[in-house]
Amino acid sequence: MFYLVGLGLGDANDITVKGLEIVKKAARVYLEAYTSVLTVGKEALEAYYGRGIILADRDMVEQSSDELMAEADVVDVAFLVVGDPLGATTHTDLILRAVEKNIPYRVVHNASIMDAIGCCGLQLYNYGETVSIVFWTEEWKPESFYDKILVNLDRGLHTLCLLDIKMKEQTIENLMKGRPIYEPPRFLSAAQAAQQLLEIIENRSVEKKTNSDLTPNSICVAVARVGADNQKIVTASLKEMASLDLGPPLHSLVIPGHMHPLEKQMLNLFAVSDHTKTFLTPENL
Amino acid sequence: MFYLVGLGLGDANDITVKGLEIVKKAARVYLEAYTSVLTVGKEALEAYYGRGIILADRDMVEQSSDELMAEADVVDVAFLVVGDPLGATTHTDLILRAVEKNIPYRVVHNASIMDAIGCCGLQLYNYGETVSIVFWTEEWKPESFYDKILVNLDRGLHTLCLLDIKMKEQTIENLMKGRPIYEPPRFLSAAQAAQQLLEIIENRSVEKKTNSDLTPNSICVAVARVGADNQKIVTASLKEMASLDLGPPLHSLVIPGHMHPLEKQMLNLFAVSDHTKTFLTPENL
Repeated sequence: MFYLVGLGLGDANDITVKGLEIVKKAARVYLEAYTSVLTVGKEALEAYYGRGIILADRDMVEQSSDELMAEADVVDVAFLVVGDPLGATTHTDLILRAVEKNIPYRVVHNASIMDAIGCCGLQLYNYGETVSIVFWTEEWKPESFYDKILVNLDRGLHTLCLLDIKMKEQTIENLMKGRPIYEPPRFLSAAQAAQQLLEIIENRSVEKKTNSDLTPNSICVAVARVGADNQKIVTASLKEMASLDLGPPLHSLVIPGHMHPLEKQMLNLFAVSDHTKTFLTPENL
Repeated sequence: MFYLVGLGLGDANDITVKGLEIVKKAARVYLEAYTSVLTVGKEALEAYYGRGIILADRDMVEQSSDELMAEADVVDVAFLVVGDPLGATTHTDLILRAVEKNIPYRVVHNASIMDAIGCCGLQLYNYGETVSIVFWTEEWKPESFYDKILVNLDRGLHTLCLLDIKMKEQTIENLMKGRPIYEPPRFLSAAQAAQQLLEIIENRSVEKKTNSDLTPNSICVAVARVGADNQKIVTASLKEMASLDLGPPLHSLVIPGHMHPLEKQMLNLFAVSDHTKTFLTPENL
């Protein structure tokens, strides 16, 4: 059996009992290590499981599925994914390849950020389309996520912004010379995402393209390391958020749409400043 | 500490290791038993945990939080919720009441249907607003969820339809006479939901209110008992779905928007008929 096992979001013990039982008895265990990270690394997981695990990078998963699934028709193979195996990042291509090879598969679900974001207090069924905010470069500053946020706001819906992760990047020099030397992983912070949003707001106001509902004073919510002991939730204006340090990754950002009084009360628990609280106090409910 | 612990969706062992550790050491454990159900009941959970648990119905949670949280500032109390504690049904009001009482709280996340629906193969970030489809009665046949589905379709987005659950209903006679006699729980099936959608399509075509993208031949996907051993996923036309029996609850229904070829291939794995497959074959990708 080929098992896709979700690890949840925070610590080693966020795996489900069902998932842990599979990990303990599987012939081989792979850890998908390129679309997300836990607050603990491979070594901590190995210590917790009491067994060795194999890191699977993108090349291996996308190009070496024969290796990954070898003998999975006769032995158990577990493929571990942070969050839910079919959550924020989907691995449906692996399922399709398993089916093609006549290998039975099973998914062991777990929390992904797509539902754990409920921790900030905004109701999940009031979210619109999820967006991804990527690292801007000097040459490439896409703004498409901003337009999707506006469409959601227009309908009163909240937007979950997933923030970019860069794993196994190569410098242009190393890439051209074919040297397998990789840069340290990078994770877009909530502050950087807020800063990029502020720049778009600024660009749009100059170009007078739109009467955006989003301003530097708009309330947003950031979450960091959801599920872990040192989880952090912060409500702030976009302007404030751009200079807040929420610590180590992963971060996510939420742009609230129309809020129910209960939702405002929840956000208020995490407000960083009087300015933010003013927007969320009973008079404004 | 007041712990809100997610149980995941399928079996007793879908609880996380972190959650199970809390359940085992807590002074009191409550099971929220009115917004969702596992495939196993209270007794199976008690046997699995090796301890007693207290069923908490809506009245108790909404009106007796003093009792629920009694001494939670000095002992550990666990409040178990099927899925994620802040997922499809939110319990943020409990968090607000805990904060008010100066009781520390912690959320232990788990899979909810909001991310586990990834099992059908449609990518989570291509979903729009989630809708709820309620049981129709002779007098009350709301159609608002249908309009939300159309808005999502218009933007190419998929729609997750959560299906109604009726727990602890009373007949009008018992209600008027104040007799605490309750009807057996009822769960809207995917077939019933599809049937209601067909009726709306029929009504709208007569009234010529809209040129809906939804027809009796539109493809939909139903999931039943996600995460459990006897989980079922079925792709069918709305017309076909209306007569399919997916077995015991819970069911959910998805109306796909624009589909990527990989998404069509996944849905094809679960197709019930050649008619459905025709919509999802490579020629139509």
